[in-house]
Amino acid sequence: MGKVTADMSISLDGFVTGPNPRPGFPSGEGGEILHDWMFPPSGSPTEQEREMRAEWFNRMGALLMGKKSFTVGEEPWGEDPPFHVPVFVLTHEAREKLPKQGGTTYIFVTDEIKSALAQARATAGDKEVTLHGASIIQQCLQAGLLDELQLHLVPVLLGEGIRLFDHLSASPISLECTRVVSSPTATHLRFRVVK
Amino acid sequence: MGKVTADMSISLDGFVTGPNPRPGFPSGEGGEILHDWMFPPSGSPTEQEREMRAEWFNRMGALLMGKKSFTVGEEPWGEDPPFHVPVFVLTHEAREKLPKQGGTTYIFVTDEIKSALAQARATAGDKEVTLHGASIIQQCLQAGLLDELQLHLVPVLLGEGIRLFDHLSASPISLECTRVVSSPTATHLRFRVVK
Repeated sequence: MGKVTADMSISLDGFVTGPNPRPGFPSGEGGEILHDWMFPPSGSPTEQEREMRAEWFNRMGALLMGKKSFTVGEEPWGEDPPFHVPVFVLTHEAREKLPKQGGTTYIFVTDEIKSALAQARATAGDKEVTLHGASIIQQCLQAGLLDELQLHLVPVLLGEGIRLFDHLSASPISLECTRVVSSPTATHLRFRVVK
Repeated sequence: MGKVTADMSISLDGFVTGPNPRPGFPSGEGGEILHDWMFPPSGSPTEQEREMRAEWFNRMGALLMGKKSFTVGEEPWGEDPPFHVPVFVLTHEAREKLPKQGGTTYIFVTDEIKSALAQARATAGDKEVTLHGASIIQQCLQAGLLDELQLHLVPVLLGEGIRLFDHLSASPISLECTRVVSSPTATHLRFRVVK
């Protein structure tokens, strides 16, 4: 069975979006800067960063996200979304599958998180299930379901937005830092969750 | 004139203490783990980490902290506090200087932050003024008064406590990462604040 992982770009003050993310505008105000290491406004990512991104996509067998992430991202992801794997969307509303081009199919799941994750794992086979969005990551961390976490730490303080690490209980969760790669635009940190 | 710097141990979820820090117990519940890289429960810090800590003390000419940091730390710091420099405490209550052993003197300042910082800088001369505590660091960041920031990022999620980056406005503040040193217990990140 593949691992459950998450890979998020995050500001130094812990935000994965700027203020007011909304449908069509998932990064919020000023939050685009979190993705500049992948999509630099000028120049190109370093060879190592390009490989890191390719590696992440290669290891991914399915994605699991919440309804909010889907709602804000659906429009910019467009008809040929960047995932190229089945994307499970946890929602309260039953809805038909939504196939897109390039191998992405949105599959709406009304079960609770453990069952949704089990479906995503069955689909992913030996590959990873990648969690997308702060709320899903928080729920899986809290339930002991996350195996690995990669953070792309961007040296900016956004001040407001959606915090990645929020609503966690005061029972400490230990991690082990397994890789550090730094570039001028981000420090890429990989962690294993200690269980 | 020396730089204004800050040097804090921080959890991966952004806390500089665990829940309920209180007088005599400045790290809060479970927060001691943030300082294990310096004071390991067994073994000793790496040579590089020992040098990093020595370097930080060598560069420090004065410290500036808020009343809350002073109140929770005064007892554990004891009669021979670890600072060995003048420590300016920003407070609303006028109070006599409090000299301690080893070169530390607590000096209580009732002025606003800019004036308190100016006094600390005059005392520090060519050496650095180090800010201590989340609130003072937030105020100086917001006012554009912080030059450099070193964070010792500890791979643990504490869930609750005092957040280092909180109460900042939504006007992004850019930094530049100038050094990354990693050890099994912490990733040490140094930043320059871009002005």
